[in-house]
Amino acid sequence: MRWIRFTAGARTAYGILEGERIAEVQGGLFDGLPVRTGQTHGLAEVKVEIPLLPRTFYAAGLNYAEHVTHAARMLGEAPDIPQRPDMGYRAVNALIAHAEPVVIPRDATAVQYEAELAVVIGRRAKHLSEAEALSCVFGYTIGNDVSERAWQKSDRTFWRSKNTDTFKPMGPWIETDVDLEAMETVVRLNGTETLRFRTNDMLFGIARYIATMTRYLTLHPGDVIWMGTDGASPNLKPGDTVEIDVAGIGTLRNSFVLEEKA
Amino acid sequence: MRWIRFTAGARTAYGILEGERIAEVQGGLFDGLPVRTGQTHGLAEVKVEIPLLPRTFYAAGLNYAEHVTHAARMLGEAPDIPQRPDMGYRAVNALIAHAEPVVIPRDATAVQYEAELAVVIGRRAKHLSEAEALSCVFGYTIGNDVSERAWQKSDRTFWRSKNTDTFKPMGPWIETDVDLEAMETVVRLNGTETLRFRTNDMLFGIARYIATMTRYLTLHPGDVIWMGTDGASPNLKPGDTVEIDVAGIGTLRNSFVLEEKA
Repeated sequence: MRWIRFTAGARTAYGILEGERIAEVQGGLFDGLPVRTGQTHGLAEVKVEIPLLPRTFYAAGLNYAEHVTHAARMLGEAPDIPQRPDMGYRAVNALIAHAEPVVIPRDATAVQYEAELAVVIGRRAKHLSEAEALSCVFGYTIGNDVSERAWQKSDRTFWRSKNTDTFKPMGPWIETDVDLEAMETVVRLNGTETLRFRTNDMLFGIARYIATMTRYLTLHPGDVIWMGTDGASPNLKPGDTVEIDVAGIGTLRNSFVLEEKA
Repeated sequence: MRWIRFTAGARTAYGILEGERIAEVQGGLFDGLPVRTGQTHGLAEVKVEIPLLPRTFYAAGLNYAEHVTHAARMLGEAPDIPQRPDMGYRAVNALIAHAEPVVIPRDATAVQYEAELAVVIGRRAKHLSEAEALSCVFGYTIGNDVSERAWQKSDRTFWRSKNTDTFKPMGPWIETDVDLEAMETVVRLNGTETLRFRTNDMLFGIARYIATMTRYLTLHPGDVIWMGTDGASPNLKPGDTVEIDVAGIGTLRNSFVLEEKA
């Protein structure tokens, strides 16, 4: 089932997406089975919104082998493959929706994409085993963990490299039924494929992450975990459009524009 | 003015604290001047709640000279005094209120306190100069950035060392009128003073942080910034009580208990 958050006219609501039609529903993501209002909308006629504002916004940093190797090479360091899952955080303030523009600051020099699977938590969970870990997952969406590599190198933290306004596109909707093993992530830059990898080919899978995290912390409905990316990205420039396609979910598309002069 | 969030009976509301009495108000922190409902409560008769659930939870990592020096010594590294403000993040999920217990995981070996001033943002802000930066501040509260030093050393990120459940006490309330220059932070462990420092004696002050951050990101009402701590802490053990007193705000008190067996 595809849950979409959208604005039609002056109202923002959730709906169930069926083909190109949205059946509007009452309430939120975690209020039980969707209750249809009877109202429907064409997908092309609404503004797609961020699927949810995360309660805590987690992100796995280095979770695919090739990406770790490439990142180390770029920083002039030896690749240091993580031995266990360690979570990072991203800022809710940096999120934008599908089709909204990523704004490149005028002093940025190396803005790149990172195509990620985003896991939406649907129920309170602590002390889950790996076998039961996926039971707390509500569904899946797509994230573009846009990163400025010069700042990632120069700053002590990722506050600016990964959390500048508009650097966190997420969407376009949440798919509750997926086959993780069949998933493939494809990135297209201006219509040309630039990256393709098996989405579930992670150093540490979703179940391992959730089991590790919930040993120490409670996950809550509305928490979101971005699972990291594979491969590398060219430096993006104003006018570029990045599409991230995850088979079984959909396509997150955002164009890049230059920050206006202050 | 002191804004307190509290539960009396089955209802959670905001109130204005005057001495030991709470005048209940309608609505939230950012709905304009407080409108009193006419209901009042004794402070001793209510449960004090977290003053707010942050939208994005920022934290300055190394922001007092002595703390930087001590932390480096502990890790066996040379002190690396930050040259500019870099923000970190903490997890909303780890927050607890004044008087709620911090739960020490059974495998933790070096749990310590960090006494911090917490800044609550009250209005949307971008591109603020240092001179105008404090205009977006709603008020101030107190945070205890509880940290497990062994995990801080062993893990790639702070996910477990600083964001384990209950590791982020915040409160007891928000004070809107403070004199930053007159503020002093005092920590008492089981009633005995263990640390005292001038609260505003930061490497980079609040205005500098906000000006730096809003060059790249928009601050929103409900964002919270913890400003770092000075000095050092002993390792805490079950049964300990930590009080953090910030002159002009109040006292955040939490006791520490051992995690129950699973």
